[in-house]
Amino acid sequence: MNIKKMMQADKVIPYLLQARFGIEKESQRVNLAGELVTSDHPKTVGDRLFHPYIQTDFAETQLELVTPVAENITDVLAYLEAIHDVTQRSMPENEMMWPLSMPPALPENEDEIDIAKLFRHEDVLYRRFLARVYGKRKQMVSGIHFNFEYGEDLVKQLYRQQNEVVTLEKFKTELYMKIARNYLHYRWLVIYLFGASPLSEARYFYDDDRPDEPVRSIRSSRFGYVNKPDVVVSYESLEKYNEDLLENVERGRLSEEKEYYAPVRLRGGERVSDLINHGIRYVELRNIDLNPFDRIGINYQEVEFLQYFMLYLLWTDEGENADKWVAEGAVRNEEVSLEHPLKETTYLAEGQKIFAEMLEMADILDLDRQLIEEFATWLEQPEKTIAARVLTADKKEGQAAFATDLGKKYYDQAYEKPYQLTGFSEMELSTQALLFDAIQQGIGAEVLDRSDQFVRLQHGDHYEYVKNGNMTSRDTYISPLLMANKTVTKMVLAQAGFRVPQGETFSSLMEARKAYPKFAQQAFVIKPKSTNYGIGITIFKGETALADYQTGLALAFKEDQEVIVEEFMVGTEYRFFVIDGEVTAVLLRIPANVVGDGKKTVKELVTEKNQDPLRGSDHRAPLEIIQLGELEQLMLKEQGMTIQSVPAEGQQVFLRENSNISTGGDSIDITDEVDESYKKIAVDAVAALGAKISGIDLIIPDIHKPYENEQDYGIIEANFNPAMHMHIFPYAGQGRRLTQDVLTLLYPEMQIKR
Amino acid sequence: MNIKKMMQADKVIPYLLQARFGIEKESQRVNLAGELVTSDHPKTVGDRLFHPYIQTDFAETQLELVTPVAENITDVLAYLEAIHDVTQRSMPENEMMWPLSMPPALPENEDEIDIAKLFRHEDVLYRRFLARVYGKRKQMVSGIHFNFEYGEDLVKQLYRQQNEVVTLEKFKTELYMKIARNYLHYRWLVIYLFGASPLSEARYFYDDDRPDEPVRSIRSSRFGYVNKPDVVVSYESLEKYNEDLLENVERGRLSEEKEYYAPVRLRGGERVSDLINHGIRYVELRNIDLNPFDRIGINYQEVEFLQYFMLYLLWTDEGENADKWVAEGAVRNEEVSLEHPLKETTYLAEGQKIFAEMLEMADILDLDRQLIEEFATWLEQPEKTIAARVLTADKKEGQAAFATDLGKKYYDQAYEKPYQLTGFSEMELSTQALLFDAIQQGIGAEVLDRSDQFVRLQHGDHYEYVKNGNMTSRDTYISPLLMANKTVTKMVLAQAGFRVPQGETFSSLMEARKAYPKFAQQAFVIKPKSTNYGIGITIFKGETALADYQTGLALAFKEDQEVIVEEFMVGTEYRFFVIDGEVTAVLLRIPANVVGDGKKTVKELVTEKNQDPLRGSDHRAPLEIIQLGELEQLMLKEQGMTIQSVPAEGQQVFLRENSNISTGGDSIDITDEVDESYKKIAVDAVAALGAKISGIDLIIPDIHKPYENEQDYGIIEANFNPAMHMHIFPYAGQGRRLTQDVLTLLYPEMQIKR
Repeated sequence: MNIKKMMQADKVIPYLLQARFGIEKESQRVNLAGELVTSDHPKTVGDRLFHPYIQTDFAETQLELVTPVAENITDVLAYLEAIHDVTQRSMPENEMMWPLSMPPALPENEDEIDIAKLFRHEDVLYRRFLARVYGKRKQMVSGIHFNFEYGEDLVKQLYRQQNEVVTLEKFKTELYMKIARNYLHYRWLVIYLFGASPLSEARYFYDDDRPDEPVRSIRSSRFGYVNKPDVVVSYESLEKYNEDLLENVERGRLSEEKEYYAPVRLRGGERVSDLINHGIRYVELRNIDLNPFDRIGINYQEVEFLQYFMLYLLWTDEGENADKWVAEGAVRNEEVSLEHPLKETTYLAEGQKIFAEMLEMADILDLDRQLIEEFATWLEQPEKTIAARVLTADKKEGQAAFATDLGKKYYDQAYEKPYQLTGFSEMELSTQALLFDAIQQGIGAEVLDRSDQFVRLQHGDHYEYVKNGNMTSRDTYISPLLMANKTVTKMVLAQAGFRVPQGETFSSLMEARKAYPKFAQQAFVIKPKSTNYGIGITIFKGETALADYQTGLALAFKEDQEVIVEEFMVGTEYRFFVIDGEVTAVLLRIPANVVGDGKKTVKELVTEKNQDPLRGSDHRAPLEIIQLGELEQLMLKEQGMTIQSVPAEGQQVFLRENSNISTGGDSIDITDEVDESYKKIAVDAVAALGAKISGIDLIIPDIHKPYENEQDYGIIEANFNPAMHMHIFPYAGQGRRLTQDVLTLLYPEMQIKR
Repeated sequence: MNIKKMMQADKVIPYLLQARFGIEKESQRVNLAGELVTSDHPKTVGDRLFHPYIQTDFAETQLELVTPVAENITDVLAYLEAIHDVTQRSMPENEMMWPLSMPPALPENEDEIDIAKLFRHEDVLYRRFLARVYGKRKQMVSGIHFNFEYGEDLVKQLYRQQNEVVTLEKFKTELYMKIARNYLHYRWLVIYLFGASPLSEARYFYDDDRPDEPVRSIRSSRFGYVNKPDVVVSYESLEKYNEDLLENVERGRLSEEKEYYAPVRLRGGERVSDLINHGIRYVELRNIDLNPFDRIGINYQEVEFLQYFMLYLLWTDEGENADKWVAEGAVRNEEVSLEHPLKETTYLAEGQKIFAEMLEMADILDLDRQLIEEFATWLEQPEKTIAARVLTADKKEGQAAFATDLGKKYYDQAYEKPYQLTGFSEMELSTQALLFDAIQQGIGAEVLDRSDQFVRLQHGDHYEYVKNGNMTSRDTYISPLLMANKTVTKMVLAQAGFRVPQGETFSSLMEARKAYPKFAQQAFVIKPKSTNYGIGITIFKGETALADYQTGLALAFKEDQEVIVEEFMVGTEYRFFVIDGEVTAVLLRIPANVVGDGKKTVKELVTEKNQDPLRGSDHRAPLEIIQLGELEQLMLKEQGMTIQSVPAEGQQVFLRENSNISTGGDSIDITDEVDESYKKIAVDAVAALGAKISGIDLIIPDIHKPYENEQDYGIIEANFNPAMHMHIFPYAGQGRRLTQDVLTLLYPEMQIKR
């Protein structure tokens, strides 16, 4: 079987880069001073019993972040970024993630290292066993596990290029066995490039058996967390591998199969016997150190290089004697792991040969050379390797200080824009918040279409689709359509006994004039049917003269052929967010404004207010930047001011008529202030519309006075797919995590704690 | 209480024409020869036990059509038109409605007149009693019952103009009592204008006590269906009215209250005692004959006049002695009813006074004069009255022949455009069909927004909202959104194991070129991401050379920046309509075409095919007119033809590439031909998408061969809100009443028979 030739087949080439990726990343939790914490796993995170994303490894302080399987590098890293954001923001405020593979200084008394407090007793027992056999300290090392699977079409097309192996399953297993052997042989190169554990912190080593000087990777050397030397397993064939593994367990050299810590693990099922029955599905590379220079411990180029390396391992011939080939790899690995990071490697020549072959492969297979060329330079310039860079930093300020600084930097990054979820930050804020909460609660979250804000959630076999944050299966098809039609909404609400503004639409001045007596004695508003920024709107608040009424009509008819004359409801408008028969947030929106301090000009006050990290532009932040454009300046002029005026201390200067958040308005949460009677009205009105989720706008003269009669409120409109981010991150008042309410609605069985 | 003055108040005037209307109309069922039928009430119509629209009156052959309450004249007549369409199309093909108030020739043996076969035994018993007391023949007379209510705001504003009557309820009752007395006094004018029963047919009269010559209204005279003369009821006050009525019942002059046949009935509840407790809510005018010149027995101007007349009755003073005032009216009524239709009325002078006062009222209240002026001319020109016109027709061909001709004309009208529902014909065809079926089944159907196709249905206290014919509460909010996203749809279907076309989207020629080997050996299609009329699309059906592939790409990239290369599924496309887990229709659409006869040119064949009443334009008919525009002529040219070519007999000439119905394509129902296995696939795929209603498009090479493997079908797309009219009225094959399936889905408790 000439795989090299098979890979060059026309039908194979288009699929060469097809692959699936998954990353697990461990991290120790430390305080902001870089000291290992003693707190429990974050309580705001969903149950570890099923959590697909946020787990603990050996110790209670040792986070294990797990991405879902992704079809490309961008996606797998996006998930890892997002899981990082969620994890960091779910931890106590004084905790962060230690960015190194080597643990921070460990407690003098090993008993103070808490084994992960898992629910299943067998999981705890196993960890206790490990602690006994290997010592707790070694278990505190962290790293990246990199899961890699060749694309389905790639494997199929390769399979069709040959006749030797009859079944696709056997063929796949042969491919992965070759990869595994070659990886074991050549893995020293990965250590050379990405090894990043040159030094230990206090109390990692039990005795004096430790490196004399910095190395490339303590973790990958015999000083790392490795099996006893008597555990030997052959990679000649899957059958042999399996036999050896079983024998090691039978003879008590391993407690169970999973105690075998190969740098590459063959994956395909829960147990090794599953491999025998169904073949290998993918491989797990376990010897990647955390790259502290990236907050998620790995970056795009590293993953891309690993993918190319996996292709190279398929491409390049292997040694005839499998066991010897693997054993040679072990020797090289040990040597390179323990080399000084700044020194040239012993295997320079072999490394150069590998890179040359990789480039040749790239040329033949029409792959990108640049990446390979870049890493090739690291071979001759060891100072470019990660271990070398860590060492350099250590020389400057000490490894612990350096790691603490980096950790703090990543910590700050996670809180900088609390409304953003890294990896998904181009999506709508509501969807980002929903993804955040899903990841936090351990609900599987897959983005099906980024630009369409289409998400699939999963818990067990319960799937839910969500679009735009709150369009779900819990609402009916017709109810949002009903809310979209303002006429029908008013009709339905009025018939159900709710107060809505009474009004009429006119298409001629004459017709509208005739209706004058209907409105003359009450507060009412004249407005063009479609209007922007209040143009053409006139509000009359008491007895209105016919002449004024006609002037109002004329102004409105200038803007539109249809004019609405409608009862004007006196009071303030509030947005009630109703979900599943409950009001979970009430918001007051006020027009863009600044409050004077007697010193700064309006312009300066605006600049200052715009510093708020919650303010951004184009709906990419919960609040919008306040503009000082034509409309704002006009508004100032009407108040006898300019942008250079200096408002008195405490004087609130409004810059807009309209209270839209999109034009710089402030959002103020008042959920706890509103009398319950109005919440009941909101809930009942939404029920009358048949909706589960709605943002309903009520006019209320006094939110503190309980509802008594019809004049105490009016319903302006009901919105389907109501904005949630303004409630989650208000300008003032308490944020309301509405996306969690959405998850509660979709997954009642999870009993999510609010 | 000076009502005349109150009506002139500024605040009253805008509401003067605010009112609510309801019409009941009786009709005898006859065969197309105008003979009374003996068949039962139509079986396709929902149960008479609850049917709000289509009932029977006294006899089994006597339809009673009932409109819902409407806020304006247009709406009430629209409902009556629609109910007519439904009733006519629900009757056996050889039956129609007799357009006259006077029945057609009655059977010699009165026993042959079947009393309505109602479910409730008490209803049958009551009719048997009536037959015994009044004779069956008189019960066979039909008419219009006109229900009228002054607008709520109108009554309120009038109420506020006075202090005498304390409660609104009592005030309202006083208004209606005045109306009733005045109507009883002046009703002769309505008989003069709209009386339309000048002659009887065979066997209406039992003896020789009958008019000697034609009259204005047999029905409204003592020859009509009236109480015995000893039944006298006072209208002095509601209390008095009630007392008298109870006394008449107690003394056995009436069997029960409802046997009192006043020309105006006071309404407000089930029983007269309800009137005492809650006051009068509206009045029912019962002395309007069927106007045979309108197919629904009444027209807009008549109703408008009646509304003005009701205002006039409020406006004009009444006689001091109520009983005398009413008794005078009875005398006048009897006289005018029995006048010869072509002769001047005895009460000409009084009539002129009424019209003069009405015009004065119109001037003062700013109402339209024109309508009043028109009817005023009838007073001096009795030949304009309806009775006179019937008489004129009778002279020409005999009343029976004339009525039969008119009945046949209305019959033809109802079948002319079977897909239209008169009164709602500007709405979408699917919504018209849904309204038709709702009315037929006796489901309350209210159009909330005509242009938005928004309907509210009601059965008992079960309300449902429907938009665009099949957007309902039975589907979830998310599922149509999922179907709207073609990428997500394909993803979900593929993951659920269905075959969807595999493909990729490219944004550069280079990128697309690289994928060549993926497609080279299979059938595939290259298309611009958005495309119209197949421009830029190339289909490759076997092994494809790279050069051809590139040409295809170039063509597609000319049309769009994004190009899709996708597996081409071989076979024919079929639309499966799935509802509630069942395929209820399968449709084949074929491009616009004509079939030659060896004689006619393409142009003539097209003209001929376009005669089909199912063809129309702008989606106002189930099929579209075939055009002979640029594209069609180009298509002919490619086949070496022009519009003047004469295709051979049986030769099918296609005029379009695409099979859209909107460009003249034919729709062919093949529901019964498709193998069940494909229906199962359609049902399962729609279930995977979580939808209750979907139109799913499958490519199937052979619909007769049961599904065996993946190559036997492919799913192209799933449509939410799928078109229904093309299935209901196909070009060929059996129509499928899908709107009835929608009602079955919404109202399972009704167990609608299909």
